[in-house]
Amino acid sequence: MAKSIQEIMPQIAFGGDYNPEQWSEEVWLQDAKLMQAAGVNLVSVAIFSWSMIEKEEGQFDFTWLDKVLDILHDHGIGVALATATASPPAWLSKKYPEVLAVKANGVKYQVGSRQHYSPNSKRFINAVSKLVNEMATRYKDHPAVKMWHINNEYACHLAECYSKESLQTFRHWLKEKYQTIDTLNQKWGTAFWSQRYNSWDEIQFPANLPTFYNPSQMLDYKRFMDRAIFNLYKTEKDILRKITPEIPVFTNFMYEFKPLNYFEWAKELDLVTWDSYPDPREGIPFRHAMHHDLMRSLKDGSPFYLMEQVTAHVNWRDINLTKKPGEMRLWSYSTVARGGDGVMYFQWRQGKAGAEKFHGAMVPHSSNPNSRAYQEVKQLGNELKKLDKIVGAKTEAKVAIIFDWENWWAVELEGKPHNKLSYLDQVYQYYEVFYKKNIAVDFVKPNRSIDKYDLVIAPMLYMIKDGEAVHLENYVDSGGTLVVSFFSGIADEQDHIHLGGYPAPLRKLLGITVDEFAPMADRETNEIVANGQRMKANLWADIIKIEGAKPIAYFTQNWYGGKAAVTTHRYGKGLALYIGTNPSGNYLTELFSGLLTQLNILAPLQAPPNVEVAERVKGKEHFLFILNHNEDPVSVTLDNGVSYRNCLTNEEISQEIKLEGKDVAIISY
Amino acid sequence: MAKSIQEIMPQIAFGGDYNPEQWSEEVWLQDAKLMQAAGVNLVSVAIFSWSMIEKEEGQFDFTWLDKVLDILHDHGIGVALATATASPPAWLSKKYPEVLAVKANGVKYQVGSRQHYSPNSKRFINAVSKLVNEMATRYKDHPAVKMWHINNEYACHLAECYSKESLQTFRHWLKEKYQTIDTLNQKWGTAFWSQRYNSWDEIQFPANLPTFYNPSQMLDYKRFMDRAIFNLYKTEKDILRKITPEIPVFTNFMYEFKPLNYFEWAKELDLVTWDSYPDPREGIPFRHAMHHDLMRSLKDGSPFYLMEQVTAHVNWRDINLTKKPGEMRLWSYSTVARGGDGVMYFQWRQGKAGAEKFHGAMVPHSSNPNSRAYQEVKQLGNELKKLDKIVGAKTEAKVAIIFDWENWWAVELEGKPHNKLSYLDQVYQYYEVFYKKNIAVDFVKPNRSIDKYDLVIAPMLYMIKDGEAVHLENYVDSGGTLVVSFFSGIADEQDHIHLGGYPAPLRKLLGITVDEFAPMADRETNEIVANGQRMKANLWADIIKIEGAKPIAYFTQNWYGGKAAVTTHRYGKGLALYIGTNPSGNYLTELFSGLLTQLNILAPLQAPPNVEVAERVKGKEHFLFILNHNEDPVSVTLDNGVSYRNCLTNEEISQEIKLEGKDVAIISY
Amino acid sequence: MAKSIQEIMPQIAFGGDYNPEQWSEEVWLQDAKLMQAAGVNLVSVAIFSWSMIEKEEGQFDFTWLDKVLDILHDHGIGVALATATASPPAWLSKKYPEVLAVKANGVKYQVGSRQHYSPNSKRFINAVSKLVNEMATRYKDHPAVKMWHINNEYACHLAECYSKESLQTFRHWLKEKYQTIDTLNQKWGTAFWSQRYNSWDEIQFPANLPTFYNPSQMLDYKRFMDRAIFNLYKTEKDILRKITPEIPVFTNFMYEFKPLNYFEWAKELDLVTWDSYPDPREGIPFRHAMHHDLMRSLKDGSPFYLMEQVTAHVNWRDINLTKKPGEMRLWSYSTVARGGDGVMYFQWRQGKAGAEKFHGAMVPHSSNPNSRAYQEVKQLGNELKKLDKIVGAKTEAKVAIIFDWENWWAVELEGKPHNKLSYLDQVYQYYEVFYKKNIAVDFVKPNRSIDKYDLVIAPMLYMIKDGEAVHLENYVDSGGTLVVSFFSGIADEQDHIHLGGYPAPLRKLLGITVDEFAPMADRETNEIVANGQRMKANLWADIIKIEGAKPIAYFTQNWYGGKAAVTTHRYGKGLALYIGTNPSGNYLTELFSGLLTQLNILAPLQAPPNVEVAERVKGKEHFLFILNHNEDPVSVTLDNGVSYRNCLTNEEISQEIKLEGKDVAIISY
Repeated sequence: MAKSIQEIMPQIAFGGDYNPEQWSEEVWLQDAKLMQAAGVNLVSVAIFSWSMIEKEEGQFDFTWLDKVLDILHDHGIGVALATATASPPAWLSKKYPEVLAVKANGVKYQVGSRQHYSPNSKRFINAVSKLVNEMATRYKDHPAVKMWHINNEYACHLAECYSKESLQTFRHWLKEKYQTIDTLNQKWGTAFWSQRYNSWDEIQFPANLPTFYNPSQMLDYKRFMDRAIFNLYKTEKDILRKITPEIPVFTNFMYEFKPLNYFEWAKELDLVTWDSYPDPREGIPFRHAMHHDLMRSLKDGSPFYLMEQVTAHVNWRDINLTKKPGEMRLWSYSTVARGGDGVMYFQWRQGKAGAEKFHGAMVPHSSNPNSRAYQEVKQLGNELKKLDKIVGAKTEAKVAIIFDWENWWAVELEGKPHNKLSYLDQVYQYYEVFYKKNIAVDFVKPNRSIDKYDLVIAPMLYMIKDGEAVHLENYVDSGGTLVVSFFSGIADEQDHIHLGGYPAPLRKLLGITVDEFAPMADRETNEIVANGQRMKANLWADIIKIEGAKPIAYFTQNWYGGKAAVTTHRYGKGLALYIGTNPSGNYLTELFSGLLTQLNILAPLQAPPNVEVAERVKGKEHFLFILNHNEDPVSVTLDNGVSYRNCLTNEEISQEIKLEGKDVAIISY
Repeated sequence: MAKSIQEIMPQIAFGGDYNPEQWSEEVWLQDAKLMQAAGVNLVSVAIFSWSMIEKEEGQFDFTWLDKVLDILHDHGIGVALATATASPPAWLSKKYPEVLAVKANGVKYQVGSRQHYSPNSKRFINAVSKLVNEMATRYKDHPAVKMWHINNEYACHLAECYSKESLQTFRHWLKEKYQTIDTLNQKWGTAFWSQRYNSWDEIQFPANLPTFYNPSQMLDYKRFMDRAIFNLYKTEKDILRKITPEIPVFTNFMYEFKPLNYFEWAKELDLVTWDSYPDPREGIPFRHAMHHDLMRSLKDGSPFYLMEQVTAHVNWRDINLTKKPGEMRLWSYSTVARGGDGVMYFQWRQGKAGAEKFHGAMVPHSSNPNSRAYQEVKQLGNELKKLDKIVGAKTEAKVAIIFDWENWWAVELEGKPHNKLSYLDQVYQYYEVFYKKNIAVDFVKPNRSIDKYDLVIAPMLYMIKDGEAVHLENYVDSGGTLVVSFFSGIADEQDHIHLGGYPAPLRKLLGITVDEFAPMADRETNEIVANGQRMKANLWADIIKIEGAKPIAYFTQNWYGGKAAVTTHRYGKGLALYIGTNPSGNYLTELFSGLLTQLNILAPLQAPPNVEVAERVKGKEHFLFILNHNEDPVSVTLDNGVSYRNCLTNEEISQEIKLEGKDVAIISY
Repeated sequence: MAKSIQEIMPQIAFGGDYNPEQWSEEVWLQDAKLMQAAGVNLVSVAIFSWSMIEKEEGQFDFTWLDKVLDILHDHGIGVALATATASPPAWLSKKYPEVLAVKANGVKYQVGSRQHYSPNSKRFINAVSKLVNEMATRYKDHPAVKMWHINNEYACHLAECYSKESLQTFRHWLKEKYQTIDTLNQKWGTAFWSQRYNSWDEIQFPANLPTFYNPSQMLDYKRFMDRAIFNLYKTEKDILRKITPEIPVFTNFMYEFKPLNYFEWAKELDLVTWDSYPDPREGIPFRHAMHHDLMRSLKDGSPFYLMEQVTAHVNWRDINLTKKPGEMRLWSYSTVARGGDGVMYFQWRQGKAGAEKFHGAMVPHSSNPNSRAYQEVKQLGNELKKLDKIVGAKTEAKVAIIFDWENWWAVELEGKPHNKLSYLDQVYQYYEVFYKKNIAVDFVKPNRSIDKYDLVIAPMLYMIKDGEAVHLENYVDSGGTLVVSFFSGIADEQDHIHLGGYPAPLRKLLGITVDEFAPMADRETNEIVANGQRMKANLWADIIKIEGAKPIAYFTQNWYGGKAAVTTHRYGKGLALYIGTNPSGNYLTELFSGLLTQLNILAPLQAPPNVEVAERVKGKEHFLFILNHNEDPVSVTLDNGVSYRNCLTNEEISQEIKLEGKDVAIISY
């Protein structure tokens, strides 16, 4: 069994991707010294080194990497050693073209950028296995190696493959899943449009079709590709675990990343890590805050690492704005505040050549140690050294949002009543209410226990599988408060309709039936009235028939004016609310303010607008993070009678704390 | 010879597509009873049943379909039996990949949605023939079978095929048409850009070209594909006619459908049927009204069936708004008012799975007989029972618009002076004037007799073939009034220019020459002045030289300010007007109001705004349809001294009739 | 050696493309007479005649062309005889499919439009060589033939080919260039993303990649295709030069054409010619004026020909507006004013068929000699006869803008800090300042001598190759004034960063370092203040560190408010300015007005707004072109005490000249 991350890294991890193969040996030594000065304690090495390690098939050359690891170790810098499998070398696809992924139009991807492989190529899996085996054998005892960084941003460019081998694998996967072709016909609803299959080898990809695909087939294709890529990961992990059983492994996750079901992946990771690149245009990066919370939730609250961020600007947007002074530090602390025990960058030294040479780095092109980038890195790195005791601290949330990758896949398939709905936008909308109130939120899978939460929200939970509804009923029955939003409970695991009135599996719990959907056109709105207040709603209206619930808001316009828009239903000891439209943010704020008050759920501190507050707890020690996203100074009132310690300055504080614009305070009590 | 539709269906046909293969036998019985209650008298069965009927090549299994037809017949419900050829089964394309249609980039379409076949595949045509033969032989004597529904929405997804077999067939078709390659070279103008062909097998598709294609070639490719798909239809029809000579056949047409020349198709249909899906966002569906009129005109005024509409909402738009209460009924009566003898739906029962599960139906997912969908269907179905005597009644129009699919193809080919012109938009613009005035309009092909009309409009009739101009001259010479709009008479059948001054074949008739075209940029306008009134014009200005005509409107702006914009020309006993720009709607209303007054063409009734009035006549009986598209009630004054009978209530009425918002009255006299 | 153009055509060339193969012999004679009357003295013949000349492989038939040339010669009309290679005949690609170019997705282009060949096909190059050899042999002594028109608008539709033969040729080209694969690996920076190559045959096209390509590879692919197409041109030229050593050759260039490095091409042309199609929507075509200046600069100021323009309107835009009366004449004189000795059209007679039949021509579809098109042509043609003495006159410019195709390619590759920057827009912005002041501007390549200019501007010169910076230093050191704008001096020939602080090769010269780039979002602006005046800036801000330079404008907003935006640096005897943002036009006008005053650079005349003035000089004679782009008349003050002659009216003028709206005067002194 792998050692715990906290055991291996008892401090906040700080560093970044390091690509020494792009530089001369002489630069390596300069790098190590600059790293030391900046407080770097961990770097990821060899992510894109396959072609430098295995220059020809079976010819492994580790001399350069040996030197790099030795230098790093000599300077006290730990290594998250990559398995170097992220991008295969040119000789591999030249010799074995079947390793190349294929587009839907049959065109093979080519060598020349990165990640051009098919996860379903057995030849590729073999080549990966050999390399990982060599890497693990070579470095299993190297003292610099703290953990394994498997591959890199799986599927970031390529989440679909349409090769013949992928098709065979897809058919095999379907056969394993459904056993008989009759079962598949039933589960895919092939009585529709004469789609019946006689045999597995008649099945094709859901691609190159004249019109709308079969949604059940498309869903299974998404599941298949997720599993195919996961299996590739698992192949690497298993080799590593066998050779280096104590060294933890991870791969780095991404932002708003739909193709991979990270909840399932996380089960096989020792550490969740992810790459966060807020666009400075967006202002306060609250969506990234949500992803911190989601990443923390993937392994039940275990601290995660931010594996990549950038000092000032990326280079892959149309226009790449730069973070203002202070923002990189502030946003880094948002990571730690929300459960991050590592703050890493892409990358250490800005490249001289290649597609990412204008991507920011800890050391810029000028190599100037007085550059803003390096200076800000150095400040942060040395500050983080003071926060060792935070490592391993947990977030305690009383509110949870149900989040489900399979629902994401299903609800955004084509052919819906409203095809411009975004699952993430719906989730963001609910999350934002709590973010602005500094109320901690966890994310949970639909089939997970939610009993420890006082308030659970299920935004647009279109897909409800067998057993999941009972689960929600039990939660409310035992006293929980559940809020379900429109277009929930509509389809089953196959994206077939739950017949018998929408939302069939939740009707009893919610005390309503939705008779019809009435999507709204772009820019169309309706109005809802609640407690005498009138507010806007858009996107969607459910035509609700009350069956035990109590309306708490009504539509006022269009032919369904006067009908219920929001309902509440006593069920057992708890409460089940239904929101049958997309109300404005101020309605949601009102609604949840009321619920939070009833449930006595409080923020750690009351703070002015745009001041983010989050708390982590370790044993009896509480760490409060106060982040001022404003340009101007603010003052935050502390709890009366409590004595706090400022973790960065080690001063005692009470009653009030003042923060400069873009500044941060971490205080413990 | 097939029996007449009126003989077979002496009532308004009412029902929809029925897909029992998606449901268990137990549901079939419930369906039949619900159909009875709703007044259903006709359903289309087996449209997508190929894979359920011929499960393997040559293995036909009709047992389930036998049962379905028996149940329907037992409940007094007639069947428009489909030939089941709309979408081929998976085994067919697996065994014979040559049946698959091919994209321009050479990629084969695949099984998984529908209609993935190539109409040029001989193997596919054979498979279709075998199936149709089996179907016809099996059910030729089944008493439920009222008519044959051939295939379904031909070419709705696939109107082009680029397979090798299609290319060979295209070359063969060209050889049949032109006989010698020299003739083809001349007809295609291949002296341009060195495009000369030595032999038929040098000819390629107009696809994958570095730049602008040869317009004559493109036009012939469109003609070829239309004929290829028509031949597929004809193959089915011929088999059916041979085995069941008395049963009428049809296929269902579509809205704004450019690829198929429906005027030509209609010659081989016993009944014109079409599928109408107005977007509720559009408000009053006047464009659909125009298509009703066009469909009625395809077979010289014979009543048509609306084969598909939806109760409340479709699922294939980006956002699928729902019809408000009353709108489905109101719009259904617009169908009958404009010559429809059938009001059918897609579909009977809303699907549980597949790409169309969110498409509305007569029985929704809830199966609830109290649902709005079923209730509205039931009301309408039972009302229509009272209108048997309307069946077969005709529309009498004194105004005609010339409409031509070949012109549509030609005028929208690339490389024109103004490449954002839409033929349909031009036609709509003229149609709308008459729609708003409740003046009946027929549509006629350019080469058809128009002598029975008092007023004929030819909007943007770019292509004028040999003989068509003389035809128009004779019409005007004999006293007709013809209005021609800009960019008419420019090209011949090959899309070659009629040399000698625009519009060469019409110059004499119109008494003008168009010296130049002056297209206007987006948002650019000019102004025209007529009878002292100033109105906007946009899109296009002709620089007109007067040669006998009289200007009746002038441009006021730009370098051609002061020149004629609209002209009128006495020719023989008639009048030929030319509109050399795209004037605003109010100008057209003014112009045509004057002409209608002169020609003494009147609406059946004077009605308030947004009240649609149309008349059908059978023998001496006149049926007036009054449709109130307003939300509010209206009152309509009836002709003095005439005594009317309300066909739905059987009450006598005179002088005035009041209608609620969205309500309809059918009165006879 | 070829004779000089001036020797062969001692008058302003006037005429157009002539495609007699589209017309009967009888029309040829009418054409010749109409040409004569219009003053036509040169036509381009046989551009798209391959399939009419070589109807089958090796079967050449010149009889029709013999006749055409004889008729033209008999009417005193010279011929720029095309080599007829612009578009290969259908039989060629049928027999040898390897001549077809291939798309990135592997699909072959097809016959049916034009230019579907691969420049890398040896089979195609052979076929071209045979045809050119036959053409040259046949017509080497024909007296009508004045010059050779090689091919047509090389690469206008097809500047990339992805055939297997192209790939082999690309690899071969790379091997020639880099000699060893290790050198290539270094020059392409393949240590990045594991892109290392072991052998030449592992290299693929920069296409079908999952994400960002290797910029060095992409740049080399652009270079390769430019050279491949150039080699095709050179093959033709070499054959012609051998058989007809005295006849000059050209090919026609295009507007804003990025794929071909015209500076390199021009070395192998005896005459620069180009095709200019301003969109009338743009108003005064100052961008086309810039291209006239660029074309003149390609061969060091030698007069060029405008090879194609249109009388009134093209047909390949979405909406094709027509030139107003007078504009064609006015813009034609802008050509002559800026160094053009030829004014030609596409095309003589408007086609009856084919993709360009709605493209305007000198003789329109009506053939009417009173048509506006022909009348305007005739007026101009007869006027130009009075300007023989201008032929060969030069433009004398004291201002130069550095322009570089390789920089264009590099700076617009993806992955930059700001990916919506347009190199041309940056150049236009600087050019426009001088255009509006009627100050002549030359364009120069970065590695050319600029010593003869008083003021040189280098807009966004991102790529600076070895030796180019020293060159600029020497220029300033010797007293020149250089203005460099943002994002200059960043990368080397391989698109690798010049390390050591931006812009490394120019830091000493400019006296600054750019610490960071701060791109601005769409619609984001900043403000700069200079001499107390406040003006807008957008797109980009450099964070400048002063190292010897003097700030002359400052930013006022955002976190870098107060920092330098524009700097000036005394260097040796000269001045080096740096503009670290994209300032508004009024700032640039202010800045350059000051510099022009300091440098005593004056316009030939002071003129009212929208009056274009340009001067050409031949020996001691000066020709002043005064073009009134206004609709209204203007009056222009002439230099006191100078006596001018109006070249068109032969009147003497002094003190003042009046021009009608859209009118032109050419006066000499």
